[in-house]
Amino acid sequence: QRRDTPKPSGRVFAPYAIFKGKAALSIEPCLPTFAKIEPGNLRIDRRGSVMMTFMPSIGERKYDWAKKQLFALSATEVGSLISMDSSESSEFFHDPSMKSSNAGQVRKSLSIKPHADGSGYFFSLTVNNSLLKTNDRIVVPVTKAEFAVMKTAFSFALPHIMGWGRLTGQVDTAATQGITLH
Amino acid sequence: QRRDTPKPSGRVFAPYAIFKGKAALSIEPCLPTFAKIEPGNLRIDRRGSVMMTFMPSIGERKYDWAKKQLFALSATEVGSLISMDSSESSEFFHDPSMKSSNAGQVRKSLSIKPHADGSGYFFSLTVNNSLLKTNDRIVVPVTKAEFAVMKTAFSFALPHIMGWGRLTGQVDTAATQGITLH
Amino acid sequence: QRRDTPKPSGRVFAPYAIFKGKAALSIEPCLPTFAKIEPGNLRIDRRGSVMMTFMPSIGERKYDWAKKQLFALSATEVGSLISMDSSESSEFFHDPSMKSSNAGQVRKSLSIKPHADGSGYFFSLTVNNSLLKTNDRIVVPVTKAEFAVMKTAFSFALPHIMGWGRLTGQVDTAATQGITLH
Amino acid sequence: QRRDTPKPSGRVFAPYAIFKGKAALSIEPCLPTFAKIEPGNLRIDRRGSVMMTFMPSIGERKYDWAKKQLFALSATEVGSLISMDSSESSEFFHDPSMKSSNAGQVRKSLSIKPHADGSGYFFSLTVNNSLLKTNDRIVVPVTKAEFAVMKTAFSFALPHIMGWGRLTGQVDTAATQGITLH
Repeated sequence: QRRDTPKPSGRVFAPYAIFKGKAALSIEPCLPTFAKIEPGNLRIDRRGSVMMTFMPSIGERKYDWAKKQLFALSATEVGSLISMDSSESSEFFHDPSMKSSNAGQVRKSLSIKPHADGSGYFFSLTVNNSLLKTNDRIVVPVTKAEFAVMKTAFSFALPHIMGWGRLTGQVDTAATQGITLH
Repeated sequence: QRRDTPKPSGRVFAPYAIFKGKAALSIEPCLPTFAKIEPGNLRIDRRGSVMMTFMPSIGERKYDWAKKQLFALSATEVGSLISMDSSESSEFFHDPSMKSSNAGQVRKSLSIKPHADGSGYFFSLTVNNSLLKTNDRIVVPVTKAEFAVMKTAFSFALPHIMGWGRLTGQVDTAATQGITLH
Repeated sequence: QRRDTPKPSGRVFAPYAIFKGKAALSIEPCLPTFAKIEPGNLRIDRRGSVMMTFMPSIGERKYDWAKKQLFALSATEVGSLISMDSSESSEFFHDPSMKSSNAGQVRKSLSIKPHADGSGYFFSLTVNNSLLKTNDRIVVPVTKAEFAVMKTAFSFALPHIMGWGRLTGQVDTAATQGITLH
Repeated sequence: QRRDTPKPSGRVFAPYAIFKGKAALSIEPCLPTFAKIEPGNLRIDRRGSVMMTFMPSIGERKYDWAKKQLFALSATEVGSLISMDSSESSEFFHDPSMKSSNAGQVRKSLSIKPHADGSGYFFSLTVNNSLLKTNDRIVVPVTKAEFAVMKTAFSFALPHIMGWGRLTGQVDTAATQGITLH
């Protein structure tokens, strides 16, 4: 969704990509946006997320970008994922048109299930479109090490998608006047 | 409390808000302030905190800002919260007028208790005012995922409310003279 | 490998070094590089890593830099290491010439094995060169405390070698125009 | 020790202080220093540490700064502390004159021992001076919550005292020329 809006320059693209036989999963944080409020302050406007992009494979090491499906994890869903222990499952449900007249037309669900032997997880994204009468399902197996990368990178990203990364850089101008601070 | 002092510009507002049926809880870090000391250094002045704002509901998805109650977690209380395991309870007591002539007049207590089934916690703020003879209690149920967001965001915020975020950016000017550092 | 390319100025060298009787291990993150893409954005180009340099000892507190052997941990290998619990082993295999005509000529393997008493780990790097008919093996015992330093420092470095450190600093220029942000 | 050297301006002081009945403990990270090397790069010069300052009490809420004792935790000692589980003890030994002609004259040891009931730890600093024939011992009880603050703040500080905080800010000038990066 965010991908389709006009992009300002100065952005940095660094997806964490997991390429497997039948599908790929690419993960990237999306930062929040801020609105100006008086007197010269900022208030968080659109919340950030961790965007997961699933793509089915169409041959050896080739993935079909046109058939990609997106799932944007909210801060609370990220919290859910990073607190999963090795035997737990999670499932998240999204309706991209929630609260609009198209509500219920498309239903997405992301399921995360541990392998029985503890060696990793299955990430399965199901997208059901009642209008087009389609039901897509893309499954990517994720190893324990790849899941550990996610947990650490998501823990790092979480305060930033919440907008708390900005808070730590703000300066009390009265106290620091005349001193150059990092 | 901090909310009532004149605010410098350049601040960023990004509360983490949990809206539930009977009440809402909004959480935001408050950075410390610094005082100038010789020769051109800074010393921490007022310590930072994690400010929790509880608001009772007054209808569907409406919350009564006028009846809000604040509770500012200190660094050590944040440490207590982030080290809680899933079966533990915590309780913190504050007297907003401690060490003044009004000490004991208002007593606040924040209680964090796990649900019996491990699915989350109850955050209960009780404010007892012996002068006004009022006793307010606002309870917000917090899911396991929301608590995980708190733990991660509080761990991120803790060094910053302690003032240690500033330490890491300081530059030994002798050694780095002539080199532009981040 | 990265060591041999021309270096821009402004770099910072701060290896974490473990000196033991028979060998030393020096560890340092290598940041990713970025390529410019339109309109004024950056895309990650070469991924970062955590570079491990093993050196055999040639006398008391002297180590043979000329006989050093390198092993660059990828993000996923870093994830694997930081998620190891105290009784687990790991082994990683690298072929420095993978996908070239020299593939299979040199095989490197890094093995991490816990001591039986839980007091630490053995880090063993084996480099097998089928052309030179050499087989080098350098072993460094790592204490539990040194391993804890690695886990914490690698968790810190991981988002940066993935390129996610850059993401958090990017600014939505539309929203923040006219305000100086950290 | 570091306290006695001439200080450049621009420093920030934000100790984490624990005041108890018989003594106080004040904790602060000390950043490493860097030396310039060709061509315009920096190499870590003096390693950083986490400085612990113990002071005996001389009355209610009064502490004797003149009788303070210092203990500078190295990166590896910090790693040891943050990986302690709730039933473990640690002990660190320092000789401030190590490798000089005064070696062995002063011996310092920091002992960290859990309370039997799991409610916290005793931090005991013993300083034995064989020349002055003195043997000082300062003990500060540390609650579980205060210890959690230390673990989180030390985990934050560790990469910075190692000098890795600087690594993440360095910029590959070739790739980013013409783009302003954070």
